[in-house]
Amino acid sequence: MSAALIAALRAAVGERHVWTDPDQIAPHLREDRRRWTGEAIAVVHPGSTEEVAACVRACAEAGVAMVPQGGNTGLVGGGVPRGGVVITTGRMNRIRSVDPLNATITVESGCTLASVQEAAAEAGRLFPLSLASEGTCQIGGNLSTNAGGTGVLHYGNTRELCLGVEVVLPDGRILNELSALRKDNTGYDLRDLFIGAEGTLGIITTAVLKLFPKPATKVTAFAGCAGPEAALAIFDILRARAGDSLTAFEYLERFGVEMVLAHLPGARDPMTEAHPAYCLIELSSPDPDADLEARMENALAEAIESGLVADAVIGRSEAQNAALWSLRENMSEMQKHYGASIKHDVAVPVARVAEFITTGVGLCRDYMPPVRPCPFGHFGDGNIHFNLTRPVDMSDAEFLSHYPRFNRIVHDLVASMGGSISAEHGIGLAKRDELPRYKDPVALALMASLKSAIDPQNLMNPGKVLAPATEGTR
Amino acid sequence: MSAALIAALRAAVGERHVWTDPDQIAPHLREDRRRWTGEAIAVVHPGSTEEVAACVRACAEAGVAMVPQGGNTGLVGGGVPRGGVVITTGRMNRIRSVDPLNATITVESGCTLASVQEAAAEAGRLFPLSLASEGTCQIGGNLSTNAGGTGVLHYGNTRELCLGVEVVLPDGRILNELSALRKDNTGYDLRDLFIGAEGTLGIITTAVLKLFPKPATKVTAFAGCAGPEAALAIFDILRARAGDSLTAFEYLERFGVEMVLAHLPGARDPMTEAHPAYCLIELSSPDPDADLEARMENALAEAIESGLVADAVIGRSEAQNAALWSLRENMSEMQKHYGASIKHDVAVPVARVAEFITTGVGLCRDYMPPVRPCPFGHFGDGNIHFNLTRPVDMSDAEFLSHYPRFNRIVHDLVASMGGSISAEHGIGLAKRDELPRYKDPVALALMASLKSAIDPQNLMNPGKVLAPATEGTR
Repeated sequence: MSAALIAALRAAVGERHVWTDPDQIAPHLREDRRRWTGEAIAVVHPGSTEEVAACVRACAEAGVAMVPQGGNTGLVGGGVPRGGVVITTGRMNRIRSVDPLNATITVESGCTLASVQEAAAEAGRLFPLSLASEGTCQIGGNLSTNAGGTGVLHYGNTRELCLGVEVVLPDGRILNELSALRKDNTGYDLRDLFIGAEGTLGIITTAVLKLFPKPATKVTAFAGCAGPEAALAIFDILRARAGDSLTAFEYLERFGVEMVLAHLPGARDPMTEAHPAYCLIELSSPDPDADLEARMENALAEAIESGLVADAVIGRSEAQNAALWSLRENMSEMQKHYGASIKHDVAVPVARVAEFITTGVGLCRDYMPPVRPCPFGHFGDGNIHFNLTRPVDMSDAEFLSHYPRFNRIVHDLVASMGGSISAEHGIGLAKRDELPRYKDPVALALMASLKSAIDPQNLMNPGKVLAPATEGTR
Repeated sequence: MSAALIAALRAAVGERHVWTDPDQIAPHLREDRRRWTGEAIAVVHPGSTEEVAACVRACAEAGVAMVPQGGNTGLVGGGVPRGGVVITTGRMNRIRSVDPLNATITVESGCTLASVQEAAAEAGRLFPLSLASEGTCQIGGNLSTNAGGTGVLHYGNTRELCLGVEVVLPDGRILNELSALRKDNTGYDLRDLFIGAEGTLGIITTAVLKLFPKPATKVTAFAGCAGPEAALAIFDILRARAGDSLTAFEYLERFGVEMVLAHLPGARDPMTEAHPAYCLIELSSPDPDADLEARMENALAEAIESGLVADAVIGRSEAQNAALWSLRENMSEMQKHYGASIKHDVAVPVARVAEFITTGVGLCRDYMPPVRPCPFGHFGDGNIHFNLTRPVDMSDAEFLSHYPRFNRIVHDLVASMGGSISAEHGIGLAKRDELPRYKDPVALALMASLKSAIDPQNLMNPGKVLAPATEGTR
């Protein structure tokens, strides 16, 4: 059975693109953080949409599960196989076309995010999606997880950056929705069904993405403040004063900044005094004459006068801007020096983000007084990485045994505020069994109906997003 | 059977909200242009989501079709009943909440678009969707048709303006996806499945919409040019020079402008000489200090130097701006003075919009030399209302007998350019039977599968978007 399938896959993509050797396939069975390790009978590397379709048909006919995999940088186990065949997109890495006048780029799903950014830049345009893993992650994975990042405030999530997709469906049919149109009302929005579906409804093979004018000017500032309530008021001032030029508004707290200062070579505190919290603010504009520095200074002056900002610095060079951003970008990594972390990627309505941080920190401290909260993230989107570092005197193992309890505390709070338990990382395996507690049961049932309609054999990335139990009852 | 259903509906919404009298229901059976007239056994006016759900359950149990209806201003017959029960949303017209800090507004689907705009403005914010019918059309209809309008270039279609929806499904269950979040990756994107589905998958009852900063400055210009190729080059200059502040770029031709000048009381030509084509350009910004007039003047100066713009005027007052916009906004209406029109609401990639207009006009003149083309529209979105006015010496009836032939010519051209045969009006009845010629067959089959999964009895606005034949073969 398995041998016949392997033979069919080899016929589809060529002998050397079907891997079955355990050592060779091992990297495709695990993910970076080693939270899950999977198994697979083979890893196949198709080189074209047609080859993906042939692989999918072979698996579908054999009744064998398929797991699509891009750069394998996901954080929720969505790409970890639990048997079956891994289908990678990495060989499909051509930039098909760049059209600056139409402001679109057509790319195969195996292109790394960085290569898409570069192709756009070469054409004098901006592709604004930006993530820590951009050198490795692939655009197909970005689309399948509706990735977020630091550019969402102005440019939107990956969903908002995509005009069209080509998808291999679970039975091997090729869906062509490769539209490069800004407006198209000819039937149901199929594109958005596959974006964010984490590979459970099909394999995205090509996409048409939006391009934007390159920013001609940019200014970055770092502002110390008393805490999240002040940060929210500062955000409101910036939004009013800077309007569309406000392209990032990130939040950090002192504990996190100290981590980076202590462990990142070359990092230094941009201010002479410590502050409880910080806002990292970026203004940018495609208009070279936009006086963003004046705009930033005026906004910060208003915030200082209102007593919201205690001190602020504005980057005066590319190097200074990069140094400010590195405090934010290295936070997750530097946390590792402080022992185990319990992490939450959550969102609440922007208006309630300060209330969420304050209440969440309080609840976690009520439960475990010496816990060290390290909330940070995309404040302007209402998306906080609500991370908790273990108490100084506790073992990693003991701290991690409280993972479910902390999840419950934080996610219950998020839900009570109309928030989301997964703002940008997705559900995958990590939050699959928690989802039914927080998702509208009608929504969950509808998701199961759609899954069943599109993938009646349940072979496409089975067990991700939707729990087998849910699948059983649909 | 019918009597039992009527009784159930009366029990659900109250006696006086169930209409069966032919005179009373007549306005709900037709649409403005009188292209279709339908029939229904009753028109019901539920006052809440729960009442909608009760009506839907009653119809579903009786196996009777339902047609959701908002302001009944649709242009493709999507709201015209073909038997069954019309369920209107007009009584559900409350603005539930406005949250300026979160930049969201929560509205019931029966709110008119104008009332949503007004509620946003009262809170110091902008809801940017703007349409000719905004005083009458309802937000539920705007969502169900993914309406476009003049603000799409900067703010996007209705789809991009919506964060969350509440929907009554075809079996009466209530789907709660009323998220006010900017980021939420907890499963499939159900919201976008209902947006643009033209009421065939359920009835949208409430929505959370995005708000934007109010423009603090605005400048409007009207530029005469040689034709669509020049207009595309002008668009490219404006986009580069004005970036995010370019909020509208509309295209008109002399024949259309002459119609308005001849028949709109008070209309006058903003220029001393006639030009073959015109661009109507708007810059706006929430930044009161943005010098948009200088930006517009610089961009137009560059276009004049390049020989692209022959003459241009900039509105120097609200009244002048309104006068310039009225030339564009009254075009469709004034066309009626020139006899029958054959209309096409199409889109192509923006980079090809000039080529489309020139080729399309040529093909139509090849077919009928004296036809009078009147293309105009949302040039910056690639969306052209490619209208044809009847020859001077031809009867309306004879001209209209060529409707299918002109449709074929224009739509085949659009399809050959990767375009859409319905950019913003939808499919409804008007383009339902043409859709299979132009839509990817896999996409069409997938649409039928989704319809079947969500509405297995095919009772929700049956026969719209998808032809009964397609439904039969799914």
